[in-house]
Amino acid sequence: MAGNTFGTLFRVTTFGESHGRALGAVIDGCPPGIPLSEEDIQFELERRRPGKHLGESPRKEPDRVEILSGVFEGQTLGTPIALVIYNRDAKSAAYEPLKDIFRPGHGDCTYFWKYGLRDWRGGGRSSGRETVARVAAGAVAKKVLAEYGIQVQAYTVALGGVWARKRDLSEINRNHLFCPDAEAYEEMCRRIEEARREGDSLGGVVEIVARGVPPGLGEPVFDKLDAELAKALMSIGAVKGVEIGAGFSAAEKKGSENNDPLTPEGFLSNNAGGILAGISSGQEIVCRVAVKPIPSISREQLTINEKGEAVKIRVGGRHDASAIPRIVPVCEAMVRLVLADYLLRQLVLKAFRNHETLP
Amino acid sequence: MAGNTFGTLFRVTTFGESHGRALGAVIDGCPPGIPLSEEDIQFELERRRPGKHLGESPRKEPDRVEILSGVFEGQTLGTPIALVIYNRDAKSAAYEPLKDIFRPGHGDCTYFWKYGLRDWRGGGRSSGRETVARVAAGAVAKKVLAEYGIQVQAYTVALGGVWARKRDLSEINRNHLFCPDAEAYEEMCRRIEEARREGDSLGGVVEIVARGVPPGLGEPVFDKLDAELAKALMSIGAVKGVEIGAGFSAAEKKGSENNDPLTPEGFLSNNAGGILAGISSGQEIVCRVAVKPIPSISREQLTINEKGEAVKIRVGGRHDASAIPRIVPVCEAMVRLVLADYLLRQLVLKAFRNHETLP
Amino acid sequence: MAGNTFGTLFRVTTFGESHGRALGAVIDGCPPGIPLSEEDIQFELERRRPGKHLGESPRKEPDRVEILSGVFEGQTLGTPIALVIYNRDAKSAAYEPLKDIFRPGHGDCTYFWKYGLRDWRGGGRSSGRETVARVAAGAVAKKVLAEYGIQVQAYTVALGGVWARKRDLSEINRNHLFCPDAEAYEEMCRRIEEARREGDSLGGVVEIVARGVPPGLGEPVFDKLDAELAKALMSIGAVKGVEIGAGFSAAEKKGSENNDPLTPEGFLSNNAGGILAGISSGQEIVCRVAVKPIPSISREQLTINEKGEAVKIRVGGRHDASAIPRIVPVCEAMVRLVLADYLLRQLVLKAFRNHETLP
Amino acid sequence: MAGNTFGTLFRVTTFGESHGRALGAVIDGCPPGIPLSEEDIQFELERRRPGKHLGESPRKEPDRVEILSGVFEGQTLGTPIALVIYNRDAKSAAYEPLKDIFRPGHGDCTYFWKYGLRDWRGGGRSSGRETVARVAAGAVAKKVLAEYGIQVQAYTVALGGVWARKRDLSEINRNHLFCPDAEAYEEMCRRIEEARREGDSLGGVVEIVARGVPPGLGEPVFDKLDAELAKALMSIGAVKGVEIGAGFSAAEKKGSENNDPLTPEGFLSNNAGGILAGISSGQEIVCRVAVKPIPSISREQLTINEKGEAVKIRVGGRHDASAIPRIVPVCEAMVRLVLADYLLRQLVLKAFRNHETLP
Repeated sequence: MAGNTFGTLFRVTTFGESHGRALGAVIDGCPPGIPLSEEDIQFELERRRPGKHLGESPRKEPDRVEILSGVFEGQTLGTPIALVIYNRDAKSAAYEPLKDIFRPGHGDCTYFWKYGLRDWRGGGRSSGRETVARVAAGAVAKKVLAEYGIQVQAYTVALGGVWARKRDLSEINRNHLFCPDAEAYEEMCRRIEEARREGDSLGGVVEIVARGVPPGLGEPVFDKLDAELAKALMSIGAVKGVEIGAGFSAAEKKGSENNDPLTPEGFLSNNAGGILAGISSGQEIVCRVAVKPIPSISREQLTINEKGEAVKIRVGGRHDASAIPRIVPVCEAMVRLVLADYLLRQLVLKAFRNHETLP
Repeated sequence: MAGNTFGTLFRVTTFGESHGRALGAVIDGCPPGIPLSEEDIQFELERRRPGKHLGESPRKEPDRVEILSGVFEGQTLGTPIALVIYNRDAKSAAYEPLKDIFRPGHGDCTYFWKYGLRDWRGGGRSSGRETVARVAAGAVAKKVLAEYGIQVQAYTVALGGVWARKRDLSEINRNHLFCPDAEAYEEMCRRIEEARREGDSLGGVVEIVARGVPPGLGEPVFDKLDAELAKALMSIGAVKGVEIGAGFSAAEKKGSENNDPLTPEGFLSNNAGGILAGISSGQEIVCRVAVKPIPSISREQLTINEKGEAVKIRVGGRHDASAIPRIVPVCEAMVRLVLADYLLRQLVLKAFRNHETLP
Repeated sequence: MAGNTFGTLFRVTTFGESHGRALGAVIDGCPPGIPLSEEDIQFELERRRPGKHLGESPRKEPDRVEILSGVFEGQTLGTPIALVIYNRDAKSAAYEPLKDIFRPGHGDCTYFWKYGLRDWRGGGRSSGRETVARVAAGAVAKKVLAEYGIQVQAYTVALGGVWARKRDLSEINRNHLFCPDAEAYEEMCRRIEEARREGDSLGGVVEIVARGVPPGLGEPVFDKLDAELAKALMSIGAVKGVEIGAGFSAAEKKGSENNDPLTPEGFLSNNAGGILAGISSGQEIVCRVAVKPIPSISREQLTINEKGEAVKIRVGGRHDASAIPRIVPVCEAMVRLVLADYLLRQLVLKAFRNHETLP
Repeated sequence: MAGNTFGTLFRVTTFGESHGRALGAVIDGCPPGIPLSEEDIQFELERRRPGKHLGESPRKEPDRVEILSGVFEGQTLGTPIALVIYNRDAKSAAYEPLKDIFRPGHGDCTYFWKYGLRDWRGGGRSSGRETVARVAAGAVAKKVLAEYGIQVQAYTVALGGVWARKRDLSEINRNHLFCPDAEAYEEMCRRIEEARREGDSLGGVVEIVARGVPPGLGEPVFDKLDAELAKALMSIGAVKGVEIGAGFSAAEKKGSENNDPLTPEGFLSNNAGGILAGISSGQEIVCRVAVKPIPSISREQLTINEKGEAVKIRVGGRHDASAIPRIVPVCEAMVRLVLADYLLRQLVLKAFRNHETLP
């Protein structure tokens, strides 16, 4: 039943319910000697926070991370790094009327069927709030990757059916949706406003790019780099699809179109998304995820309660109109967790081949 | 570097290079007392064999599986089940001229960069032939699932841009592409013939459905059922995308369209693909994978050799024009491995709650 | 490098340095629906606390455990249970003079050689204080085992060369050394007093008995129940030896003496210590551990500093004269963690064989 | 239930029943580029073979190992290395009369209680024959360790109550009991002869020493090097106790006697057995295991059958009088598996700290 740990060498375990006392993560396997402060982590948490923008939940989440262990005099020790974020703004009363009702599109029913009991306050463990621990852990992975010059960036390429038509990376951090196309951004905002008025919600697509990844990361056969990325990203609550490189469009191509020609100067295209046979090729790693519309909507829906009786429901409370943009830093975090782990896994092999001396 | 094991309780380790002495799998954690014979496994291997159909490699693979351990008097013992398939028809000479050349779209370069050496004969460990061990292991998982009435079926929904317009399940095993639409099948065959003439290859989309899966399978947070399915399917060499239920189309829907209403009689739709918050809901589980065109094509391509020099290449030899249909049983196998593992994981919880007595 | 997680299904990860902000544990895989309160855990922590008795460190450790997640309305949820114990009484100044000196018999040198840096305050992660997290986690395992009537008890059978000559279980909780022989207890106290006067320390032997363990727990080949118990117990800092049943004395017996005859009424002896071929037999499980004398002594010793220079050292500060009695509840905790995990592992098999229905 | 895999990075899975078709091992995570031949493995298998000496089973085991994968042109590929040893000399008929009887001291009863069925031929999976796969895998670990100059040697220090009084290493391979004391060897032989005449069996103690182990191997907290060694050694069927360094005798020492003084020239003693706080110190690693007398004896014993009825039994067949000497190479193999794994685990950390470049 244990399923809250991720990674082999850089290994993260998260905990916490949406309205419980705290959420957090323990990172086991972080190398020693890396500078790490609470501010490094806080910075990433802020990116995940709901802003004052249209379409985002007004819930104030003054999430403050505390490092409980594993860091001494500003450096990682090589021992487990425990991170905790206390819940301060949880208002469970709003959930009281729904406590025995299964909200459509949520895990209320499946958690109940699985466990026989559940924490109904704010979705408990199945809440999107769980991702705060992923982002905190991802901030540590970011520091590990920085030592090898590896960078990960995610951005919104579609929202509510509006698609970004360009990838202007300098634009990404200028708008609150992390959209690389200023024009599409305006349209997306209008679409959100519209959905909000209708009491409805929107889905979208997020693209994640990793730069500076050296060739050789990824373990055949089952632990391919793309396989682990797929798991990492699909494990985010709202994600219903993952593709690498050309992804689903590769299904419609011919081999002569899809193969990336290789020259002494490098690859001439990147349909592979930086991964061949599960191993990084040194090109940019490119993934995309399909984000479903947030299931909490204020329009009336059919559902049942714990006794199996028919009920009509309108989900009020503090909800975003889309998991985007808050899911964007979560995608970055998950990709970073994978890359930090796979970097370490490949370093073993490399060190052995180079007859790295010990201690 | 170890990456050839899959699963937590129902755990499979595979081994073998394309032209090495043998391929195989060890299954650790299969419950005792399940009837199992070599014929059960052979049956699935036959479904994966290349037929005499157009577009498939003429390589004869008279794959015969042997059970080396774990079965006694026709029943599983609860001890590891070792399966071995000796390579009998490997013709490595054809690969000799390519031994220091990186075939585009293949793992030749990434294996070399990772390991510093590689088995160039038929792709070595990165060959599609590796999947024979998955199919063998999947046949054991199938027996485990059968005890709980769980069935998995995969079929081709797109090939070379031709899409199946219906899901006539009775049609699937009537044609060699496992296509549930007889009319689309004819078109697909024409498309393959065309590609073959052009010395090119085709991609496609495979859909996998699991029926009879009880609610409750799947472990929050990282080991969600859909996350593990995504990993399992993405770990198949040719797969570049995975989606669950509505998948990428969910990204364009509103919450009111995408939520599956729940009634005392069950769900009214299945956009979730049978999984909510990472846990099975009792509905059919539906996944789709994007299969890239086979990279081995006889058209001329640019590439480099191990020294980094520019080379032109035409990949001859015995190659299929598409990973479909042979990938279809492989997809079934991977989904079965996940479900067998997650079934056992949920049984722990169930047994505990029911105060199952021991021994 | 990750090495702070224990268990497969009932999985515990601990964190924390001796003088850091906090220590704690995350338990992933605890079944839902088990009553659990902070008092349940606090009770075990108190047993581990240094008392006012002779030979124990006067450090006041008002350890208060907080449950941060995984429990709702007094019951476990099936989600990770995070436990935290803040360090309140850490006085690091006493360690300042030793910060670059390797205390003999401690991990100071090996941590430094391994990691290249270390938290010198109170031994950091290698401190005996780390075991507070084990005891906290063990208290949760105790609740799991209670549902199956399994009980674990540890007691002191030797200290400073004084051996208990009987096993009067009712005596164990009457004296502060958990010694089952009132007379030996008096001698042990005298020996401690003596060692203390000499500025020296003592070792001893702890025996652990588990009752009510059903037959069938233990997984061949490597995950034998005794193998896992040996790992669990040897992972406690001060332990240098582990034996099961007759243990080292079995080495001097003949087969005819060592075999436990089996009758319709049960076994006639228990040289096996309740485990045959790595699987529990239904008899009492009996282990013993050798506990080395605490390395912190106030007598002068030779050692070196981080630069490798010769140094003479007297370790002052707040130290116990023996790891006994505080190690006794730690041994219980570790055995409970193993048994809870192996109970769940066997329940999978049992549930499957019984065709346990889901959900 | 899966329990047949050992190690994290250098990971071994074994399979096979005593009288089944074959036994074997799959090693996942062996670095590439290491010279490896069947002869390397065969050499170790020969050391484990029963000789013509007194007290050893006359069963001829012409064990021939075959490498099925993972080696190409004489070098490891980095892919899984599958090893298989076919059973050629299995004579199951001798076991037929015992098929529903539980032999005392064996796992017959516990296997039956656990699994509900068992392979009664020669002990099935619980047979000592299972260790042939460990020795084969250990031979690969030996090659890995050789690249770092690490050597492991085991020898007999006690047998049937006769103790070696010296450690003459040059003597070890001169006698068939691997005893480092020629005089004690003679006594041991007499004791075996005696036991054999009485239809009885003997236990003993094996010591294992690892030389050239660099400081820094071992992962706090649970994965301490000594903890993993204890698990590895206790997982061998006949082992009932494990100790490191001074072991159980440390329990009777004072801190001032047990601490190993540290000088610029190194440690002045080695009570720690080369491991401090779970991490190697650069000294010799020293372990000892208690080996119980073989339970198969020809003297009459009480037991029961599968129905629980009282039965008298004499175990005939081909049995050794002691698990020694055949267990000696098995102990070496298990220690090598641990060290190879922990070497790789430490190389990760080292490579990271050194900013080892990739690829």
